[in-house]
Amino acid sequence: MSQLLRTRPATTDGMLAVFDDGATLRHALAFEAELARAEAAEGLIGSAEAETIARLCGDIIIDPAALAAEAALAGTLAIPLVARLRKALPEAAAKALHKGATSQDIADVILACQIREGHALLAADLARIETALAALARRHAATPAIGRTLLQDALPIGFGLRIAQWQANVADAAKRLGHEVEAGAVLQFGGAAGTRSGLAGKGATVAARLAAGLDLPNAAPWQARRGGIAGIASALAIAIGCLGKMARDVSLLAQNSVGEAREPAVPGRGGSSAMAHKRNPTGCQVALSAALRAPGLVAGILAGLPAEEERGLGGWQAEGPALAELFLLAAGAAEAMATVAEGLEIDEAAIARNLAAAALGGDIGESEALVEALLGDAGR
Amino acid sequence: MSQLLRTRPATTDGMLAVFDDGATLRHALAFEAELARAEAAEGLIGSAEAETIARLCGDIIIDPAALAAEAALAGTLAIPLVARLRKALPEAAAKALHKGATSQDIADVILACQIREGHALLAADLARIETALAALARRHAATPAIGRTLLQDALPIGFGLRIAQWQANVADAAKRLGHEVEAGAVLQFGGAAGTRSGLAGKGATVAARLAAGLDLPNAAPWQARRGGIAGIASALAIAIGCLGKMARDVSLLAQNSVGEAREPAVPGRGGSSAMAHKRNPTGCQVALSAALRAPGLVAGILAGLPAEEERGLGGWQAEGPALAELFLLAAGAAEAMATVAEGLEIDEAAIARNLAAAALGGDIGESEALVEALLGDAGR
Amino acid sequence: MSQLLRTRPATTDGMLAVFDDGATLRHALAFEAELARAEAAEGLIGSAEAETIARLCGDIIIDPAALAAEAALAGTLAIPLVARLRKALPEAAAKALHKGATSQDIADVILACQIREGHALLAADLARIETALAALARRHAATPAIGRTLLQDALPIGFGLRIAQWQANVADAAKRLGHEVEAGAVLQFGGAAGTRSGLAGKGATVAARLAAGLDLPNAAPWQARRGGIAGIASALAIAIGCLGKMARDVSLLAQNSVGEAREPAVPGRGGSSAMAHKRNPTGCQVALSAALRAPGLVAGILAGLPAEEERGLGGWQAEGPALAELFLLAAGAAEAMATVAEGLEIDEAAIARNLAAAALGGDIGESEALVEALLGDAGR
Amino acid sequence: MSQLLRTRPATTDGMLAVFDDGATLRHALAFEAELARAEAAEGLIGSAEAETIARLCGDIIIDPAALAAEAALAGTLAIPLVARLRKALPEAAAKALHKGATSQDIADVILACQIREGHALLAADLARIETALAALARRHAATPAIGRTLLQDALPIGFGLRIAQWQANVADAAKRLGHEVEAGAVLQFGGAAGTRSGLAGKGATVAARLAAGLDLPNAAPWQARRGGIAGIASALAIAIGCLGKMARDVSLLAQNSVGEAREPAVPGRGGSSAMAHKRNPTGCQVALSAALRAPGLVAGILAGLPAEEERGLGGWQAEGPALAELFLLAAGAAEAMATVAEGLEIDEAAIARNLAAAALGGDIGESEALVEALLGDAGR
Repeated sequence: MSQLLRTRPATTDGMLAVFDDGATLRHALAFEAELARAEAAEGLIGSAEAETIARLCGDIIIDPAALAAEAALAGTLAIPLVARLRKALPEAAAKALHKGATSQDIADVILACQIREGHALLAADLARIETALAALARRHAATPAIGRTLLQDALPIGFGLRIAQWQANVADAAKRLGHEVEAGAVLQFGGAAGTRSGLAGKGATVAARLAAGLDLPNAAPWQARRGGIAGIASALAIAIGCLGKMARDVSLLAQNSVGEAREPAVPGRGGSSAMAHKRNPTGCQVALSAALRAPGLVAGILAGLPAEEERGLGGWQAEGPALAELFLLAAGAAEAMATVAEGLEIDEAAIARNLAAAALGGDIGESEALVEALLGDAGR
Repeated sequence: MSQLLRTRPATTDGMLAVFDDGATLRHALAFEAELARAEAAEGLIGSAEAETIARLCGDIIIDPAALAAEAALAGTLAIPLVARLRKALPEAAAKALHKGATSQDIADVILACQIREGHALLAADLARIETALAALARRHAATPAIGRTLLQDALPIGFGLRIAQWQANVADAAKRLGHEVEAGAVLQFGGAAGTRSGLAGKGATVAARLAAGLDLPNAAPWQARRGGIAGIASALAIAIGCLGKMARDVSLLAQNSVGEAREPAVPGRGGSSAMAHKRNPTGCQVALSAALRAPGLVAGILAGLPAEEERGLGGWQAEGPALAELFLLAAGAAEAMATVAEGLEIDEAAIARNLAAAALGGDIGESEALVEALLGDAGR
Repeated sequence: MSQLLRTRPATTDGMLAVFDDGATLRHALAFEAELARAEAAEGLIGSAEAETIARLCGDIIIDPAALAAEAALAGTLAIPLVARLRKALPEAAAKALHKGATSQDIADVILACQIREGHALLAADLARIETALAALARRHAATPAIGRTLLQDALPIGFGLRIAQWQANVADAAKRLGHEVEAGAVLQFGGAAGTRSGLAGKGATVAARLAAGLDLPNAAPWQARRGGIAGIASALAIAIGCLGKMARDVSLLAQNSVGEAREPAVPGRGGSSAMAHKRNPTGCQVALSAALRAPGLVAGILAGLPAEEERGLGGWQAEGPALAELFLLAAGAAEAMATVAEGLEIDEAAIARNLAAAALGGDIGESEALVEALLGDAGR
Repeated sequence: MSQLLRTRPATTDGMLAVFDDGATLRHALAFEAELARAEAAEGLIGSAEAETIARLCGDIIIDPAALAAEAALAGTLAIPLVARLRKALPEAAAKALHKGATSQDIADVILACQIREGHALLAADLARIETALAALARRHAATPAIGRTLLQDALPIGFGLRIAQWQANVADAAKRLGHEVEAGAVLQFGGAAGTRSGLAGKGATVAARLAAGLDLPNAAPWQARRGGIAGIASALAIAIGCLGKMARDVSLLAQNSVGEAREPAVPGRGGSSAMAHKRNPTGCQVALSAALRAPGLVAGILAGLPAEEERGLGGWQAEGPALAELFLLAAGAAEAMATVAEGLEIDEAAIARNLAAAALGGDIGESEALVEALLGDAGR
């Protein structure tokens, strides 16, 4: 029972793939395989069992819909998944499987891997925006235009200064997001109560090997310490909001009675089912819609921070879907605004006409210098 | 690219079906078919064309994934859907299709239909809870138990009084939701700018026929007047929060050192991948997780109320997914708590033991009378 | 240490007075006085003691700043307040004071009284808006204007149709708010654990007398059943959002390059510290700012619904300030938009000019009939 | 009309002072004084005028209530403030005042200064918590206790491991907050449209001098680029949520039937108006209440990111009160939890009793090593 038509936000195929069933399962199976290898290397389980486990994890085919239904009932993906794997393994390997691990270890490792993959895609689109806007800002730095405050004509600005502000906004947000992902998307491996018990005192070395195998930074368990996830979520929402700022401005500039800039024409985008003449700012709509939804998704994650004891009841379970949705929204907004940035149609005649109509004296001040100050090395 | 494992909340198959692609398309096609019939009845299009349209809407098979991708690009479902229908129709019928309608008319009609169907399912589970809790509350109305405030032992209460409060909470929330759905899930039919132009002055009668055909209350267009949707969203979140209140209490009562009540055992629910002895309050987890996510989803819908002019840019597009998610969360929470209510295991010995341990004198006051005052006729 | 300059939203003096220290204390003292009278009437305490208590409650002067500091420490206003009253009373009256009541009874009664007084003020300003907009909508019902969707010119509308949509939006929101206040702002009287113990079985009659004395509807205790408060908060936010919708449109219409309508000039409002020529849409700013803050305030209240057992830890304590802020924001927005509605300057020449510039054919459809359908009896 | 009793959260006197009227006015007047000095140093205004302005800014006495009312009407504090200053100055100085500045420059500079002062206070209380928890964690690192997941007994942990997780949570949050404040609380100086016009090309040097005079990092204007403020708000909410996590655990441990730890007794805190025997976890209540309110306050700030053009209508005006409230809530929560951390009463007998009752075998794994890994150098 797919719900594509109802709940799918405008997003990218790449980001959908990061969070789809195949990827989720792949990370879960990689966890079990790498855990077995790490434990075998430390002599906690047999090498033969580890290889049997790793092979199964590479080969097994699982129906996501059936697993999802069982997971929704069980309250966690790991329970039905581990049960399936155990059933498919010989007894010794079945016993060796998942040793010292718990459901949340898998869930958080999946999340950390998806965050890193999702961030890589997103960072690329944000970089496209930064580059395109830097060029536009420099090109129009000295073009006199009417500046507007509180939706009213104010004083002249260099048209590129507005664009440089968009650029700096996105660049700052991208930087914050990178830091949060680096700090927060890390290995989770603590076992049932977060103590790494049952590992003969080798929990730290198993963790180090597991982290290396999964290509995640090593870390102490964080199963009920969720500030890192909240930091990532907040940084995503800020990035979305900064894309929304650019979208707000473009959509205002594209009003028929303003006409200073408009989105590029994209086949299949921006039409109307009733009015053939319209060219709707649909890319901006994508970003603005995302910017309306993101704050509440973050609020839900923040509200879950006061988790109970060694594993919260309800809080961390609410994080995963919200974080995935934030990535999907961010990807849609970033891709849409990258397209807008790279193809923005700027109408210098309209800019001049509106400035003249404002009939407000004054020069553009230090717009050009501020453009350079805001951009720094961007686009060089 | 399904995302069941990442984003699917614990919900019911029934509610998933209300919002799945098939249902979404069915409502969209019903809109076009009923619109054609209504317009033919008013002489605005030919009867033959209307029948051709209605037949196609009953027969056409559409790939949801392809349509979803086009809709995400176009910014609305209607544009690629109407294009497909037109392509499949003879010229005269193609011209008669979608007459006087616009994308948002379809989108809002789909939403209104899904709200009504989703509400019917939800109301049934809420009623199950009300009935089960009313019986439990009466049965334990006079059972002395320690009451707790601010997580500390306070004074004795009748154990059933706590349950009667759960019941009244859910009953009030169900009533509010019913009113909001009745008032807000209504026909949307306004055309491109909400004026019902192009209908030869027969817009009002077309609307009346269309509403009857779709089994929706008739209404003036509300394409940028979204208070009704916000009211439904708020009522859903309140219902979820009230289910969360019951879940919070059950999970506290089920703590090992309290032990006064616990969820019934449900096969496949509440286990642990690491600890065979555990019986986790997974039904409560479902409701509490929903209660953490719902407030932010509502905030997103409320934030979209200041829509621009005759159709907002970003706001109403953000509503549909959030509202669907609220229904999915509510259904999961209601079904989980219905199971809990119907099978709640109450341990009278533990209740007595904890009361004795509190060593706080006093009677249960007017607990029994308050139980009756809170329940009213419920469960009679 | 007043924080007027930092935290005071644009609001009305009347609404500030509803929630100020004097009013808060007055309701708290009325609770103790009326409780004593009700209990004396039922023979639970002596009449002389009741009169002594009532007299003190009418006469006592309390420093709010000192009380606030103690209340913040104690976690509740009632503890230091009752302590002061007891200290000022003879022993017998001191013993009779607050009999069968608890801190939250006072807190919730204060809240219920403030909600009702706040709602009365707000309803009056919402009614002003409804009346003014109804007249404007009828006056301009047939004035052809360009309608705009997604911030782009769409098709003609009657200018009054847009205004009638604002009117219906506000009217619906006012109606919802009235219902929620009527249902949710009611007597709270349950005692320490919500059982009305220690009242010799006369709790119900004491409650009835207390409710009458306080002019509140009688009700069963609701100390951990907070759906009613959440309903009021949601209805306030929806009303604010609907005012924000009107403000969004007015601010867009007031753009220099659109010029179809603008706020009336109000002395002291809308100037600029840097640009003497500007006439900023400051009334709209007030409403839009409120509409940005309200959703999060509601989310916080919704998040507190899963309260623990007989009195939650953190949840209900978070409600009061958020609800007061919602009323202050609503009052500011309603007063600002009432002024805008009553003095809106509409420029018919600009409307005609923009319609001509759009160069889009078509009539205004059934705009006039829809205006009447939306307004109903409003303004008649 | 003070509203202390209704809206004042539990907070510290120090933090109230940071955001009170005196501080707000002091920063505003410092801005005008330092701006005049900077401009005189660059030869843009006369030195005599600058000194006259600076002297007035040091001497003037302003009634905050009157100014607040005018500011609420005007939509900005700067307009009535500058008007008062101008009225009190000789003509030449009046003309030199506020040269090249705009309302938002003052508003954002005030905000930046208050953020830095508020952060300094908050950081001190967070450091107290980190130190106290580090000592507690080490002391109890090897104390076997039952770990709990999903509110159910799980497996043994070292009691100090739970505390070390609290410590790391708070330490990470404090670090994030420090970075965000450093990056985001910076000079705003752009003038009417953000171009630094009217300064004869000396805007950059004036800005540098002004920043130095105000002891703020210099920066390019950010009047409609609000990601930095959103980052600070998010970091505050995460810190509050992490304090809430500790509070959640302490309140669960303090339940009568658990009894493993409880808040220290603080005179005036934690009593009950109805039950003399109670010792309520009121410090935890303060933190948990703050943790419920903070997410929505952040959501409101995030929602304002898509600001319009050179100065948004509604968005940035909504930031100030929300950010101040976040600081007040954070200060209250941090102070309360510092007191809890420094005086936490741990009952080793109860810990042992509950562990024995759980009757679950197993050791505490690598709890001690994990305590050290989490704490790092903290408390050394």
